[in-house]
Amino acid sequence: MRAVDIIARKRDGQPLSDDEISFFVDGFTRGTIPDYQVAAWLMAILLRGMEHHETVALTMAIVHSGKQLDLHDVAPFVADKHSTGGVGDKTTLVVGPLVAAAGVRVGKMSGRGLGFTGGTLDKLESIPGYRADLGTDEFRHQLASVGLVVTGQSVDLAPADGKLYALRDVTATVQSPPLIASSIMGKKIASGADGIVLDVKVGNGAFMKTEQEAADLARLLVDIGRGVGRKVRAVISDMSQPLGDAVGNALELKEAIDTLHGAGPSDFRQHCLTVATQVLLLERQEAAETITPELERLLDGGMAWEKFRQWIGAQGGDLGYVDEPGRLPSSRLTAPVLASRSGYVSGVRADVVGLASMQLGGGRAEKDDAIDHSVGVVLSAKVTDWIEEGQPLLTIHANSEARLQEAAARLAAAYVWSDTPVKPPRLTHQIMF
Amino acid sequence: MRAVDIIARKRDGQPLSDDEISFFVDGFTRGTIPDYQVAAWLMAILLRGMEHHETVALTMAIVHSGKQLDLHDVAPFVADKHSTGGVGDKTTLVVGPLVAAAGVRVGKMSGRGLGFTGGTLDKLESIPGYRADLGTDEFRHQLASVGLVVTGQSVDLAPADGKLYALRDVTATVQSPPLIASSIMGKKIASGADGIVLDVKVGNGAFMKTEQEAADLARLLVDIGRGVGRKVRAVISDMSQPLGDAVGNALELKEAIDTLHGAGPSDFRQHCLTVATQVLLLERQEAAETITPELERLLDGGMAWEKFRQWIGAQGGDLGYVDEPGRLPSSRLTAPVLASRSGYVSGVRADVVGLASMQLGGGRAEKDDAIDHSVGVVLSAKVTDWIEEGQPLLTIHANSEARLQEAAARLAAAYVWSDTPVKPPRLTHQIMF
Repeated sequence: MRAVDIIARKRDGQPLSDDEISFFVDGFTRGTIPDYQVAAWLMAILLRGMEHHETVALTMAIVHSGKQLDLHDVAPFVADKHSTGGVGDKTTLVVGPLVAAAGVRVGKMSGRGLGFTGGTLDKLESIPGYRADLGTDEFRHQLASVGLVVTGQSVDLAPADGKLYALRDVTATVQSPPLIASSIMGKKIASGADGIVLDVKVGNGAFMKTEQEAADLARLLVDIGRGVGRKVRAVISDMSQPLGDAVGNALELKEAIDTLHGAGPSDFRQHCLTVATQVLLLERQEAAETITPELERLLDGGMAWEKFRQWIGAQGGDLGYVDEPGRLPSSRLTAPVLASRSGYVSGVRADVVGLASMQLGGGRAEKDDAIDHSVGVVLSAKVTDWIEEGQPLLTIHANSEARLQEAAARLAAAYVWSDTPVKPPRLTHQIMF
Repeated sequence: MRAVDIIARKRDGQPLSDDEISFFVDGFTRGTIPDYQVAAWLMAILLRGMEHHETVALTMAIVHSGKQLDLHDVAPFVADKHSTGGVGDKTTLVVGPLVAAAGVRVGKMSGRGLGFTGGTLDKLESIPGYRADLGTDEFRHQLASVGLVVTGQSVDLAPADGKLYALRDVTATVQSPPLIASSIMGKKIASGADGIVLDVKVGNGAFMKTEQEAADLARLLVDIGRGVGRKVRAVISDMSQPLGDAVGNALELKEAIDTLHGAGPSDFRQHCLTVATQVLLLERQEAAETITPELERLLDGGMAWEKFRQWIGAQGGDLGYVDEPGRLPSSRLTAPVLASRSGYVSGVRADVVGLASMQLGGGRAEKDDAIDHSVGVVLSAKVTDWIEEGQPLLTIHANSEARLQEAAARLAAAYVWSDTPVKPPRLTHQIMF
């Protein structure tokens, strides 16, 4: 078997066999197939696509590139939740403790943010002391003792994924459904999740711009997981405007803490309840209509908040900062952006807001960039709101005057207006299982 | 300008600007753009194509990656001739001395064979002493003194092409019209040719399998050259069976020598006259009908042969071997393949014959493979011939019994039969300028 022949077959639009796919992934992981051959192969996959069985084979080749966790000695059922990435998406910070409070163990290996979407670990690391580098034994122990653990991806698990992603990032081959799906599911399957809820974002602030693209990806993700015996549900959720009001690491953490106290923006709270309900449905033969009220009680009764504190404390985070969020990193400068007209807000471009937050220092353009946890944007006007000219649309949190000015200019263009009332966007577009 | 953004634009089917293309080729040549980004870019070009202006820009970026020869101090007009590669294609060995005998100076930097097509330098190196590594000064001097020089590609000229080709070869990105055209024309323009005849082969033994593919490539090549002020003509010629009877380095050289003595297979002689006529038409305002008879006289009167001897001698080749071709490398074993049926030959698969010759040791699977100049195949039956069962179809020249048996098995399947008379294939499909 020669790498160049496998590239040629995919270039010509032919489906590859399981053996050909595992030969390629294995060779890349072990260093016997050079990155330039892999780069050409990835571009051929992006432009020619993969059949379902090929994507499954690619996923399993990624799983088999390293160790596989088996967590059944510490928990009979372990759930995981994954978002395809959005702006203001701090859902894990609330859903994790909420479902753990309901008795479902959650073991999650998470990523860092790249581009205009944020990463859960970056948000958690706003808390002094929080450790995102747990070893496998620590991961197991905390899963057993607290029922909730969120750490960085272990280098032992699915190592092919990290190598492939680094190459895709620099060869313009990120945006491919089979490559995205195999990357997500390869990691999840390797990390021992029995059940997985996938939060597939759709809209201008997400990788998937159209409902059809998002639905196709969700279907692919669900089918891959079910094909290897995992329980999988997907929520296709709105990213036509940022989720909640806060965008930026510590700002989003504060919003999550508010939400865990029963407050927080209503769209964000609602989305958390939707996703958490789906997590519970992985395990329970019950109706969503009975599960959601139970979750509301756990949220409003402080049980989810208590679980959050246990989790953060177990991972070394200083609870003084979450108990008094005013002590979390905050920026030196704040300034509002005011409405230049009166009208109904019909759109808040999430990509523009995400990019502004990134350029304030809150995100990474390159994977090794340092980030500033304190900066970001807090929206005070969202879709359907009537805003008078001169009223604040949002507040910028910055640490440099120049960057603040740049963000202000950029953010003024994020708002889309209507003279007539607009319909609220659907938070949840579809649920698949 | 970032390489990844340029890859993304081509991935999405957008045309690139001249600046983007030269940024990429320049960065690859200087080592600032890594091969994995170039590999992804090449695959995107192969699958998305290039507009005409992009192919011209790519050609000129290749030209500007190194020095450019200006030969006008030694010759007012220098012609070159390039074949896209076929089986049994020894045309340069006859056309070079023939047109030089007619007074047109030919300076050619040639390549070695790869895969099932042979290379002119490999055929010439059957002659002990022949040097294919002339420096630029030697190239100029011989062009002035003999009027004909054929050597290897200078490393100073179009270095991007060598780097790109090596990468294309291992990433399944050879088969792309804009990449093929820019590679051919980049080298020709850099090496100072004022006029170029392109012999574009079409058929199962060529890279271009259909007349339309060949015509599109020919049009592209001609237009690129004219766009930068060169005189260019293209001959689309048949490769549905091998050209002439001999396939293999020394065997082809012997056939070229026969042809320079006024003999040789009629299809090969005719093709040489067609190509040579096109070379003369680059410079002369005359009708082909008056040029071809002149060339026939030069061939049959021994003037082309005399020019061949001058050329080979000037490049260090031992003339004893060309004067007595029996002394050229010859194989230890020969064996015929006999017809298993009677019938009219309706096809001789050139790709099968080329592959058999390669596997006898006469060609390279990989670029650094050593080759055996003595082995190959000589056909005694070609399309239109009536052959009785048991008559010889061809003779295999081999140096190992095992390889001979393997070639015999392969070659038996090269023949296609008809019970009724078949039409002779058209040698020349089209001429373009």
